[in-house]
Amino acid sequence: VPRPKPLPPIVGLMLGDCTGIGPEQCARVLADKRLADAARLVVVGDARVLMQGARDAAVPKLAWRTYAEPTDIDWDSEEVPLIDLGNMDPAEAIRGTACPNAGRTAGETLERMAELARAGALDAITHAPLSLAALRAGGWRCADEHELLARLSRHDGAFTPMTLVDNLWVAHATPVMALQAALAQLSRERIDAALVAADWTLRAAGVETPRIGICALNPRVADAFAGREETELIAAAIAIARARDIRCGGPLPADEVFFRASAGELDCVLCMYHDQSLHLVPQAPRSREVSFTAGLEVVATAPAHGPGFDLVGKGIATTRSLEQAVRLAARLATARKQVAPGMFVPS
Amino acid sequence: VPRPKPLPPIVGLMLGDCTGIGPEQCARVLADKRLADAARLVVVGDARVLMQGARDAAVPKLAWRTYAEPTDIDWDSEEVPLIDLGNMDPAEAIRGTACPNAGRTAGETLERMAELARAGALDAITHAPLSLAALRAGGWRCADEHELLARLSRHDGAFTPMTLVDNLWVAHATPVMALQAALAQLSRERIDAALVAADWTLRAAGVETPRIGICALNPRVADAFAGREETELIAAAIAIARARDIRCGGPLPADEVFFRASAGELDCVLCMYHDQSLHLVPQAPRSREVSFTAGLEVVATAPAHGPGFDLVGKGIATTRSLEQAVRLAARLATARKQVAPGMFVPS
Repeated sequence: VPRPKPLPPIVGLMLGDCTGIGPEQCARVLADKRLADAARLVVVGDARVLMQGARDAAVPKLAWRTYAEPTDIDWDSEEVPLIDLGNMDPAEAIRGTACPNAGRTAGETLERMAELARAGALDAITHAPLSLAALRAGGWRCADEHELLARLSRHDGAFTPMTLVDNLWVAHATPVMALQAALAQLSRERIDAALVAADWTLRAAGVETPRIGICALNPRVADAFAGREETELIAAAIAIARARDIRCGGPLPADEVFFRASAGELDCVLCMYHDQSLHLVPQAPRSREVSFTAGLEVVATAPAHGPGFDLVGKGIATTRSLEQAVRLAARLATARKQVAPGMFVPS
Repeated sequence: VPRPKPLPPIVGLMLGDCTGIGPEQCARVLADKRLADAARLVVVGDARVLMQGARDAAVPKLAWRTYAEPTDIDWDSEEVPLIDLGNMDPAEAIRGTACPNAGRTAGETLERMAELARAGALDAITHAPLSLAALRAGGWRCADEHELLARLSRHDGAFTPMTLVDNLWVAHATPVMALQAALAQLSRERIDAALVAADWTLRAAGVETPRIGICALNPRVADAFAGREETELIAAAIAIARARDIRCGGPLPADEVFFRASAGELDCVLCMYHDQSLHLVPQAPRSREVSFTAGLEVVATAPAHGPGFDLVGKGIATTRSLEQAVRLAARLATARKQVAPGMFVPS
């Protein structure tokens, strides 16, 4: 008797900022069930926002059924399951702009989803693009979505912001913050945690033996300016990581490590501070970027692009990043379930 | 009566590291006099190194005449003028490698040329590619060629390393050094000096009203992490520069400023620290980069590429960067002569 195929993980889909392209992106991928092989999607948000997205995406017949809790969902139903929070009337926000009430309810929705994930009712969360300006105007103080997700999932320690662009991963040893502050936070422990998180994430995402290249902090480290950061922090973290069977090398100057990565010699680049990864930007088509906050108990992914205020309602927003984000969330959630409890957060 | 065309400036040509591609590059551009419209070139170095370069470049008939001083040169002669220092027998260095004696004599040659330039016997200096490893092994302690040139030309204060890649200039407010040290050195005065130097350099190089974009130090300065460096140092320097009629704007995140530059909206990008300009590298063909140390009394340019140890003696080294370097040196030297004495070093 063949074993029944395991059901795909339950991924909570957050519609993003309701004044941006998120609702129409979500409606589009829900309408034709193109992600059904990867995830059981449940929308958490407001039915009126989803309805507006369906109109914008020209899928007005999108059918959904509301449930109070994910555990109530009838997964055999053809209708899209929705946890209707009833917290956002899209008529009360101006489309294509950052609105305080849209930002406030976006944060509240994410907060509810993080609780559901922590309680095990969701295996992972994917959120459509948010507006940082709206979140902040709505009272959610945060440097970026990574920090917000860490807070909402009640995570205390360090976390590792990661981005996937095509097949290249980029991880950061420090979150986005002022450069002096990032230098002050950089430690052997943070680099070590980021290496473990990156290695776990890539393996979980299907890269068999991830090859990680590590950026130096200082310029021209091969011949001149290797400092304490390279000789003590990075070199020590590499030694520890190798003892853990993590395949990594460096520290290399940022231009060299990204050159090697673009030549296919690396699967992941670990940057010491936020702006080092900007080297990646000029080559990256914005429609293929996925963002992931590694090191949290909650699996949370998102398209790395913004809410596309200039594209809203035109029906031209692409969904590739969002689809990649859902597929990644599902893979990572599945991988988490396969390891022993207590082991599932490498941080 | 038409005014006689002014003679082009006298540019001292240094052959670069004698174990690298410099000598053959120099021999090639000297043999067909392709730079005669721009500069009166005088080689300062060892005749035996020039002879080896001529053989490698397959221009064995290259003729030269030695002089004791540049003032002795008969510029009507067809022969290439050479100040023969007799300080380096190429047979005593291993080609394609960094040799201490080659580095030692390279530094000595540059030192002599800087003296000649300070004495007014040379209007400018262009050096073919050097090996930093050889220079250091030969006893010349320096972070890079910019710092060496500053020291050899007895310059005490700040200077502004600049690079020209195709039509885009990049200037640096701090020289290459450990990141923490660069942050400690960053000041309103340095940014101001770099803006003045960059504006002067671009005007002298023929850009009518240079448009300079300034990198922020901190990430995401538009919405989050603008710090004291942006609000006090950079903004204050911009205000001063604008009062001087320098067309500049910022601070902008590094990715945005390089994106705008590559779209043709900027002529120059001012970076706060060395690695910010690495954003430029992936797009830049290495054969078109020129390096200039702004802020010195001595005009000194060079190809920004290395000594090409893997290419030595194959006769395949291109000369485009070297030619651009000589043409730039000549333009800058001419521009210097046109301003009042005491005004010629914007620093």
